[in-house]
Amino acid sequence: MTTNNDQDHLIPIDHPRYESLKYRHKIIEGMKALVVAEAGLIAHGRGECFDYMLGEKTNETAKDAIEAAVALLLTATHPVISVNGNTAALCPNELVDLSEIINAPLEINLFYRKEGRIEAIKKVLEEAGAKQILGLDELKMVEIEELSSNRRNVDPNGIKIADVVFVPLEDGDRTEALKKIGKKIVAVDLNPISRTSIWADITIVDNIVRVVPEMIKIAKKLKETDEKNLKNIIKRFDNKKNIQFSLNTIIKYTKKQKKKTFIKLKKKNKNQNLIK
Amino acid sequence: MTTNNDQDHLIPIDHPRYESLKYRHKIIEGMKALVVAEAGLIAHGRGECFDYMLGEKTNETAKDAIEAAVALLLTATHPVISVNGNTAALCPNELVDLSEIINAPLEINLFYRKEGRIEAIKKVLEEAGAKQILGLDELKMVEIEELSSNRRNVDPNGIKIADVVFVPLEDGDRTEALKKIGKKIVAVDLNPISRTSIWADITIVDNIVRVVPEMIKIAKKLKETDEKNLKNIIKRFDNKKNIQFSLNTIIKYTKKQKKKTFIKLKKKNKNQNLIK
Repeated sequence: MTTNNDQDHLIPIDHPRYESLKYRHKIIEGMKALVVAEAGLIAHGRGECFDYMLGEKTNETAKDAIEAAVALLLTATHPVISVNGNTAALCPNELVDLSEIINAPLEINLFYRKEGRIEAIKKVLEEAGAKQILGLDELKMVEIEELSSNRRNVDPNGIKIADVVFVPLEDGDRTEALKKIGKKIVAVDLNPISRTSIWADITIVDNIVRVVPEMIKIAKKLKETDEKNLKNIIKRFDNKKNIQFSLNTIIKYTKKQKKKTFIKLKKKNKNQNLIK
Repeated sequence: MTTNNDQDHLIPIDHPRYESLKYRHKIIEGMKALVVAEAGLIAHGRGECFDYMLGEKTNETAKDAIEAAVALLLTATHPVISVNGNTAALCPNELVDLSEIINAPLEINLFYRKEGRIEAIKKVLEEAGAKQILGLDELKMVEIEELSSNRRNVDPNGIKIADVVFVPLEDGDRTEALKKIGKKIVAVDLNPISRTSIWADITIVDNIVRVVPEMIKIAKKLKETDEKNLKNIIKRFDNKKNIQFSLNTIIKYTKKQKKKTFIKLKKKNKNQNLIK
C-alpha cells in the first residue's frame, strides 16, 4: 500500500480500480502540463462511466470496428490522425507508433485553445518519438466553413486534403462538419449514441487506451495482405449493427449488475440492523 | 449566440445542453477557486454520464427516496449534512437552506486535502449564508478508526455524534465506515451500483442539483406533519427496490436510445454516400 498526502497518489497500487486510476492520474497530470483542458477531465469522467457499463474490455463488435478502421486507413490516399489533449495525455507513444505503421501524419486539432497548449501537446508527441506533426502553425491553417468553433482551422497538408480522418475522442460538431465536406471518419467514442458515433463511418465504441494498441497489432497484420482483402473487410463492416451491438452490451451489463446488486443488497439487509 | 475564446464560455446560451454545461462550468470554476479537487472534475463527468442514462430528470423512485430521506433526517436526533468540494461548488445556497430547514449542521469533510481547500469551501458556504459550519478546526477533529483515508477525521460535534448523516457525492470507503460505526446514511449518487449506493440506508439516485431543491420543498411540507407519518414514510421505503428500479430506468433508457439511434442511422445511410 502506498498512500500519501498528494491527492494524485492517494490510491494504493493494489486498488481494484488501479488501471482506471492510472489513466485518471495521466489526465490530471496532463491538465497540469497544459496538455489537457479542464473540460477534458470532465469528458474523461464521462468516458470512465461508459467504459464501466461496457465491461471495461474490447468486445467483439469493437474488435470488428477496429479491423475495419485499420483497413480503411490503410486503403486511404491521405489518412490523417487528429490528436487532441486527452489522446496525447493518455497514449502518446501508441499514437506515434500507429502514425508510422499506417503512414498517417498526426495533426493537433483542439477544441479548447489556450496559450501554450499546442506547444505542450507538441512536446508530448515529440517525446514519444513523433517526427512529423501537423497543425502547429496557426498562420498556415485553412478554414472548414461548415464549422464555427476553433476546430474549423485545419492543416492544408493534413485534414484539408485527407480522405480518411481518424478522430479519437471527438466532438459531434466537428465530426458532422468533416462528414459534410466529404471525409470518411473513423471515431473512437465510448458513448455509442453521441453525435460523433452516429456520424462516423466507423465508430469504435471502446477505450482509446485499449484501441490504439489493438490498431497497431491489426495494422501490422493487415499491411501484409492485399487491397482486395482490405476492401472486403470494409465492405463486411456495418456501423449500424456495430452501434446497436454496443448498446446491447450496455443493456446486458446493466441487467447483470441488477442481479448481482440484488444479491448484495439482500445479504446486507440480513447482516445489518437497517431501517427495514 | 455568445462564443469567445475563453474555454469556459465557448458554449452558446441556446445550446441544447446548456443546463448541463452550466454546472460543468461551476465545477471548473470551483477547481480554479480551490473548492473542487482535480479528481472532482472527473467524478462530475462520471455523474453526467449516469444522469444522461437516467434521462436527466428526477424519476418516481428518486422522489420516493427523497421523501424517505427527508423523513429520516427530520426524525433524527443529530442529523448532519456532510459537504465536499463538488456539492459546495454545485449548490451552496440550497445546502445552506436545507441545513436550516431540517436543522442539520453542515460539516466539511474532504477526501482530497489541499492547502486552502477547507477555507475556500468555508468561504463559499458563508457567502451562501451558512451560520454554523463544522469540520473546520483540524486540531479538534476525532478519528473514525474504520477508515484509513483523510476522511477518518470527523467533527466531535458533527458526524461523530450524528445518528443520521446526509452524504451527497460520497466515496464508498467512507459510506461503509460510517455504516460500520452505526450511522444511518442518506446518500445521493447517480451511480446506482456504487458501494455508496449499496451501503446507504437511503440512496437517492439522482443529480444533486435537482435533489437538494426537492428536499427543501418536501422538508417544508413534512415539517408540518407528525412523527407517526414520518415513521410510516420511512417504513414504506425499500432501498433494494429503489436501486433495482433505478437500474431498470437505465435499461429502459438504453433500449429507447437503441430504437431512436437505429432510425437516425438508417436516415443517415440513405442521405449520405457512405462506406456501405
